[in-house]
Amino acid sequence: MKAEVLTIGDELLRGEITDSNKSFLSQRLLTLDIETRFHVTCADDRADIAEVFRRAAARSEVVLVSGGLGPTRDDITIEVLAETFGRKLVLHEPSLEALRGFFARFGREMAAINEKQAWFPEGAEVLENPIGTAPGTMLELQLAAGERSSSGRDGVRKVLFFCMPGVPRELYKMMDEQVLPRIASRRRVTSWVRASLLRTFGIGESSLDEMLRDVALPEGVELGFRTQFPDNHVRPVARAASAAEADAKLARSCEVLRERLGVLVYGTGEETLEEVTGRLMTLRGVTLSVAESCTGGMIGEVLTATPGSSAYFKGGIVAYWNDAKAALLGVPDEMLKQHGAVSEAVARAMAEGVRVRFGTDLAIATTGIAGPTGGSAEKPVGLVYVALAAANGSQVRELQLAFDRERNRRLTAQIAIDWVRRHLLGAPLDLPRLGRVERKS
Amino acid sequence: MKAEVLTIGDELLRGEITDSNKSFLSQRLLTLDIETRFHVTCADDRADIAEVFRRAAARSEVVLVSGGLGPTRDDITIEVLAETFGRKLVLHEPSLEALRGFFARFGREMAAINEKQAWFPEGAEVLENPIGTAPGTMLELQLAAGERSSSGRDGVRKVLFFCMPGVPRELYKMMDEQVLPRIASRRRVTSWVRASLLRTFGIGESSLDEMLRDVALPEGVELGFRTQFPDNHVRPVARAASAAEADAKLARSCEVLRERLGVLVYGTGEETLEEVTGRLMTLRGVTLSVAESCTGGMIGEVLTATPGSSAYFKGGIVAYWNDAKAALLGVPDEMLKQHGAVSEAVARAMAEGVRVRFGTDLAIATTGIAGPTGGSAEKPVGLVYVALAAANGSQVRELQLAFDRERNRRLTAQIAIDWVRRHLLGAPLDLPRLGRVERKS
Repeated sequence: MKAEVLTIGDELLRGEITDSNKSFLSQRLLTLDIETRFHVTCADDRADIAEVFRRAAARSEVVLVSGGLGPTRDDITIEVLAETFGRKLVLHEPSLEALRGFFARFGREMAAINEKQAWFPEGAEVLENPIGTAPGTMLELQLAAGERSSSGRDGVRKVLFFCMPGVPRELYKMMDEQVLPRIASRRRVTSWVRASLLRTFGIGESSLDEMLRDVALPEGVELGFRTQFPDNHVRPVARAASAAEADAKLARSCEVLRERLGVLVYGTGEETLEEVTGRLMTLRGVTLSVAESCTGGMIGEVLTATPGSSAYFKGGIVAYWNDAKAALLGVPDEMLKQHGAVSEAVARAMAEGVRVRFGTDLAIATTGIAGPTGGSAEKPVGLVYVALAAANGSQVRELQLAFDRERNRRLTAQIAIDWVRRHLLGAPLDLPRLGRVERKS
Repeated sequence: MKAEVLTIGDELLRGEITDSNKSFLSQRLLTLDIETRFHVTCADDRADIAEVFRRAAARSEVVLVSGGLGPTRDDITIEVLAETFGRKLVLHEPSLEALRGFFARFGREMAAINEKQAWFPEGAEVLENPIGTAPGTMLELQLAAGERSSSGRDGVRKVLFFCMPGVPRELYKMMDEQVLPRIASRRRVTSWVRASLLRTFGIGESSLDEMLRDVALPEGVELGFRTQFPDNHVRPVARAASAAEADAKLARSCEVLRERLGVLVYGTGEETLEEVTGRLMTLRGVTLSVAESCTGGMIGEVLTATPGSSAYFKGGIVAYWNDAKAALLGVPDEMLKQHGAVSEAVARAMAEGVRVRFGTDLAIATTGIAGPTGGSAEKPVGLVYVALAAANGSQVRELQLAFDRERNRRLTAQIAIDWVRRHLLGAPLDLPRLGRVERKS
């Protein structure tokens, strides 16, 4: 089954908006193991839309259309669909009622212009939109089998058109609740697909691939890899003849992968490292403070992005200048003079100093040269120290990063947060095995 | 002149990558006043690419293709282009030399597989790629005028195909330096377009529109608006019969707009508020420290994202818990008890406290309830105080925000940084006139 995704709207062609609906629709089709063969975008133009519809019908079996279902003059998707395939438009009374009800809920009367949204091509099925005004449409076409099609019987091939709203929230809901089940029920099911995402930090994509090369996964399970700096994620995809079997294969795969990767896996799906680490701190009743130099406040910002972070995060000191490191963190002037602000000794003193001042169980500190300037022969750009202080002592590591300023800072913050997680799990405070990261201690 | 943009690659269709090349190419075409009529993406498949090429040639006059120029088996753009339009592939010696030179610069020998990148359709023009291995191609086709085309003479119409690498850095350079000039020299020039972007903070899109409704701009200048939370930008676009005239109209428009908007305009083009504010501090030799509660380190992070920020930013204290506000910023316990941490008095004490502790000229402070929980009837979610302290006194404002946690924090940080800019320019410390922002003081 080959699919095609069409999006309609002038604003998409001007390049001012990134069209993420296409990606979403293709990703969702993949859950039914259906590949998208073409993405096409055209303007709100009658002739262009008709041409795009005709081409799609000639070469694809499932056509997903997004956009142009609104009430204004520009919104002509449904009209053009009917015209292109020789259908009349007919009024769908239940949709008209639903539209009136939608406006009534907000205490408003429906404008005449909205009535248009209750008209559909004859023979089409209406897809309800419980969270917006524009219902969707499914139209099943029976076409003469063209030369490029080999799927038809008796010279007839079927093409399914689905029209959905362009508003992402409405599109997502309609795709998942109404479109995917209709496609699934119509295709000859050969396989069910289930996928998961295991999030790892601290290992490069190729090392991850290497570590998993000989892992014994159930038959029909494939691994994909995704880089999302500074993380790398593993995506097991399980295919089976039934949904239950695919679920079971996926669960087994995740188990096997977690066993192999151990503490490198910090979470699944959409979970962030700071959420997972924050949850651990909440569970253990542990508090944290931070002393930041090169990260400039980023660790605090990342930690407090999670609602409820005040349960464990007491605060921090951003000591960008040396005199602040001395005055506010109690780093001895002598030490700063002897070792310099970017040194193992100062990183340790910062972590210990901030821990005492905030009275927290744990503290982390960063000091380094993020770049692009500020380096020397002895202390080059990318030299960074990370420290973690606890009641029973502190640990520091030196590392040499070779990214740009933004990513050097982002990676340093992530290492510091990962150390808190590792400390709470009793795991060693490893430095990441990533390309462009040299581990010096 | 109608254009079409084609991108090629399996990974684009799977929805795992957001295809930003299309947007870029369409935006650049608009500088020549050329509208894109279709965006099409297809897989690395010979038949699909050929079909897409044929359709594009039949309906568009300029076709921009990105991707599939690499050395691997998947990279077949050039081969299919030649096949589709009946051209032989011929070896381009200078490109082969350039390829060998490219590898030699990195001390490596060119692999045999790369030779492929020096073959082009007969009659095509080669576009150099000084920063990568894949040269581009321009192929000018002379086709019989089809029924949809009205632009041809004597039954012949010309179509320009440009193939460019998919690597964004290489694509951007090739588009600007080689493709746009070639298109410009071939089309019948009816107008030159010049655009600029004036960045504003502190005013909503509709208020901005309102403020500019009766502004007297030169003829042929149109205004566009772009929202980039929490900023809103104005985009004057000037059209004229010559480049010089368009430049002059644009310059005059920017002058008129700046006059009308005053201090609301903080910069142009890609400049950020923190860069502009940092430059002002550097020029005046002014230093800054911050005391953050609800922003949790975000202001420090944003300020230190700019290289060279250590010239003015000494550091900050993130006082997330109340005892930190007392112990590290000297906010009196009594005041915290009487007014609560989220109060005008505490915001002021935080700014004044951090200014003294860091010994800076200026200091800013934030305290508030970012949400989604933590509010009360008296102090609801979104209540925020911002304070600025200077040698000659301090100022505080109360405001009520109605965004989500992330945007409440982002907006608060932006207000604080904008206040530093306004203070240095001698402008009043306004609160933003944005939707969902209530100004209480």
